[in-house]
Amino acid sequence: AANKKLLVLPGDGIGPEVMREVVRVIDWMDRKRRVSFDLVEDLVGGASIDARGAPITPDTVARAKEADAVLFGSVGGPKWETLGFDMRPELAILTLRRELGLFANLRPAIVLDPLLNASTLKPEIVKGLDLMIVRESTGGIYFGEPRGVETLADGSKRGFNTEVYSTPEIERVARVAFDLARKRQSRVCSVEKANVMESGLLWRQTVTALQQREYPDIELSHMYADNCAMQLVRNPRQFDVIVTTNLFGDLLSDLASMLTGSLGMLPSATLGAPDSSGRRHALYEPIHGSAPDIAGKGIANPLAQMLSFAMLLRYSFDMQEDAEMIERACTNVLASGLRTADVMAPGCAKVGTHVMGEAVLREL
Amino acid sequence: AANKKLLVLPGDGIGPEVMREVVRVIDWMDRKRRVSFDLVEDLVGGASIDARGAPITPDTVARAKEADAVLFGSVGGPKWETLGFDMRPELAILTLRRELGLFANLRPAIVLDPLLNASTLKPEIVKGLDLMIVRESTGGIYFGEPRGVETLADGSKRGFNTEVYSTPEIERVARVAFDLARKRQSRVCSVEKANVMESGLLWRQTVTALQQREYPDIELSHMYADNCAMQLVRNPRQFDVIVTTNLFGDLLSDLASMLTGSLGMLPSATLGAPDSSGRRHALYEPIHGSAPDIAGKGIANPLAQMLSFAMLLRYSFDMQEDAEMIERACTNVLASGLRTADVMAPGCAKVGTHVMGEAVLREL
Ligand SMILES: CC(C)[C@H](C(=O)O)[C@@H](O)C(=O)O
Ligand SMILES: CC(C)[C@H](C(=O)O)[C@@H](O)C(=O)O
Repeated sequence: AANKKLLVLPGDGIGPEVMREVVRVIDWMDRKRRVSFDLVEDLVGGASIDARGAPITPDTVARAKEADAVLFGSVGGPKWETLGFDMRPELAILTLRRELGLFANLRPAIVLDPLLNASTLKPEIVKGLDLMIVRESTGGIYFGEPRGVETLADGSKRGFNTEVYSTPEIERVARVAFDLARKRQSRVCSVEKANVMESGLLWRQTVTALQQREYPDIELSHMYADNCAMQLVRNPRQFDVIVTTNLFGDLLSDLASMLTGSLGMLPSATLGAPDSSGRRHALYEPIHGSAPDIAGKGIANPLAQMLSFAMLLRYSFDMQEDAEMIERACTNVLASGLRTADVMAPGCAKVGTHVMGEAVLREL
Repeated sequence: AANKKLLVLPGDGIGPEVMREVVRVIDWMDRKRRVSFDLVEDLVGGASIDARGAPITPDTVARAKEADAVLFGSVGGPKWETLGFDMRPELAILTLRRELGLFANLRPAIVLDPLLNASTLKPEIVKGLDLMIVRESTGGIYFGEPRGVETLADGSKRGFNTEVYSTPEIERVARVAFDLARKRQSRVCSVEKANVMESGLLWRQTVTALQQREYPDIELSHMYADNCAMQLVRNPRQFDVIVTTNLFGDLLSDLASMLTGSLGMLPSATLGAPDSSGRRHALYEPIHGSAPDIAGKGIANPLAQMLSFAMLLRYSFDMQEDAEMIERACTNVLASGLRTADVMAPGCAKVGTHVMGEAVLREL
C-alpha cells in the first residue's frame, strides 16, 4: 500500500511540545509495524500569523486537502488576542473545517479508572463514563449568513449572526451519530431548542424522520439543550451518543469533557463526507487549548495528542488494533502511577511531557 | 400605601400545588405584617390552551401589565407537546418576557449547607456556592428576525434564526449585572463567543466600554461560553456575577442550577426597565419545570416557589427584611431535617408539599 500522508500542524503554546512526543510514536510505528507514514509539518495559528501574516495560508489548506489525515495541535495565545476578528488564530481551525468539509466533530468523554478522582463530580456519578458527542461543525451560526455589525442612524450598533441548517446538513451528521451508535449502545439523543427556534424544530423533525426511515434499530430521544446541560451534570451516564448543532455542541462537548476532570487526556476527530472510494478528509486534535501559561515548560500532558493519533488510526485508516495498542499503552502508563501535573494525584509520580512520551513508547 | 397588586399564574403540572403553599404565606403576611396584597389568579400554559385555546391570552397579558409583580408557576406537559410551534405552553413565558419588556433574567445558584450533599459535585467544590447569572431575556436568537423554515427548489428545507443584539440592549442588561455586583463581590464575568460571532464581539466591546465609563469599581472579565460551561464544572466558586446572552444564559443558568443538585430550591426573577417613578415590570418563577410525572401527588417541593416570592419582595418592593424572613424560614425548615422527596437525605424526614408549606408557615 502507498504511504499514508499525514499533515502535522503543531500550532502554538504547548502544541509543538506535545506533538513532538506523538511524532516519536509515529516514527516507532514506521519502524516496527507494517505501516509507513509520510509526515509533512506546517504552521498554523499564531505561528503562521508571525511567519506569514495569516492564521492559515491557502498553501497549508491545499496540503491539508492532499493529506490522508491532519493531526492538529492547538492554536492561540495572548500575543495574538488583540489582532482583530480576521486575524484570530482560531480561524485556522474554522477554515480547515469549512474548506475540508469536516462536518462531524466527534468528542468522546471517557473516564478512565486510574483518573476517576480527577473529576470534580462524585466518583459514583462518573465511574465508567463513556459518552460520545457528535457535533455538527461546518454549519449553524458559525458560518451562517448574513452576519456582521452595522451602525444604526442613532449611532448605536447592531451585531447579528444567522443560525441556519438545511435537511441534508442535518441528515449527514445524524447519520454519523446513528452509525456510531450501532457500534456502541444503539442510543442517540438529539439536542436542540425546538421549543424556541424554528431551525431547532427542523433539526428535530429531520432526525426523527431519518431514524424512522433508516435506523429503526436505534433508540432515538430528544432533549432541549438547556436540559441536556443539566442532565450531563445530574447523570451523564444516561447518554450513549449525543448529536447536536455546532453551537450547542461547542458548549456541551466542553462541559462533557470537564466531567472527566482530565482535559489533558481527551482527543477529538472531525470528519468529512466519504468520497466514492470511501476516502474522507479528517482532522484530529486534542480538546485542550494551547495553554500559553505552561507552554515551553515541558510539563504539558501529551496523552490527549497521543490519543488523537489513535483516533486517526481508527477513523482514517481503520487500524483498530494499532489504535487500541496506543490507547492501552496510555492507560497502562497511568495505571503504573505516572502523571503529568494536570492529573497529578497523591501517591503518583509527577513527570514531564517527555518522560510521559517515553513511558508510552516503552509500553509499546 | 395602596395595596400591592400581584398576578398569580400557577400554570400546569406541579405549578398549582406548590403555588397553593405560597398563597398561604401571602395570606399570612396580609394578616401579620404591615402589607396588603391584592391577588389576581389567572391561567397560563396548557391550562389556558385547554380553557381558552391559547397558551396565554391578551387579557392575561394586560393583567400582567397592570400588576406590580407577576408570580409564575410552571407550564407544559405531555398533553400539549404535539400541538405545534404556535401552541407551545412555553409561549406563555416568552410572550410575557417580550410584552412586559422583561430583559434581565436573574438566576441565583446557591448551595445551602443542609443541602450540600444533594449535589453530584464533590462537597469541597460547591460548598458555599453563591453565584448569580444575569441572562438577557428579550433579545438574541429567541426573538430575532428573520426566522422560519423555507422549502428549497430541490424539496429540501432550510430552518433559520437570527442572533441579534444592539448596543442599548447589551448595555441595559450589563448595567443590571454591574449594579448587582456592587452589592456582592464586585466581579462580573461577561460570556459570549466573540471568537466566532460578530454579535458576540459587539457584546464584548460594549460591556467593556460600559465598565470603563460607568463601573470602574467593578472587576470585569470575559469568557467564551464553551469555557464558561467548563469552568462552572471545574470551579464554580470562581464566579460572582455572570452576564450573558439569552441563549447562552439558558444553558449556563440551568447548568449552574444543577451544580446545586436541588432544582426544587431555586427561584428566579425577570426584570424590566424601571420607569420614571422607579416602577418596573417583574416576573418571578421557580427554575424547575412543571414536572408532570409527579403532578397531583402532593410530593413536589414548594420551596423554589416560596423563594421566588421572597425574590419578589426583595426586587419589586424592596422589602429586604420580609424577604430574608422567608428565606430564613426555608433554611430553618431544612436544617430541622424536613425534606421533600427531591432533596431527601439519610436521617431526614420525608414530607409532602403541604407539610413542607405548613412547616414554613410555622417557622414564620
Ligand atoms: C477555537 C474555536 C473556534 C472552537 C469552536 O468554538 O468551535 C473551539 O472552541 C472548539 O470547540 O473546537
Ligand atoms: C420555557 C423555555 C422557553 C425557557 C427558555 O428557553 O428560555 C426556559 O427554558 C427558561 O429557561 O426559562
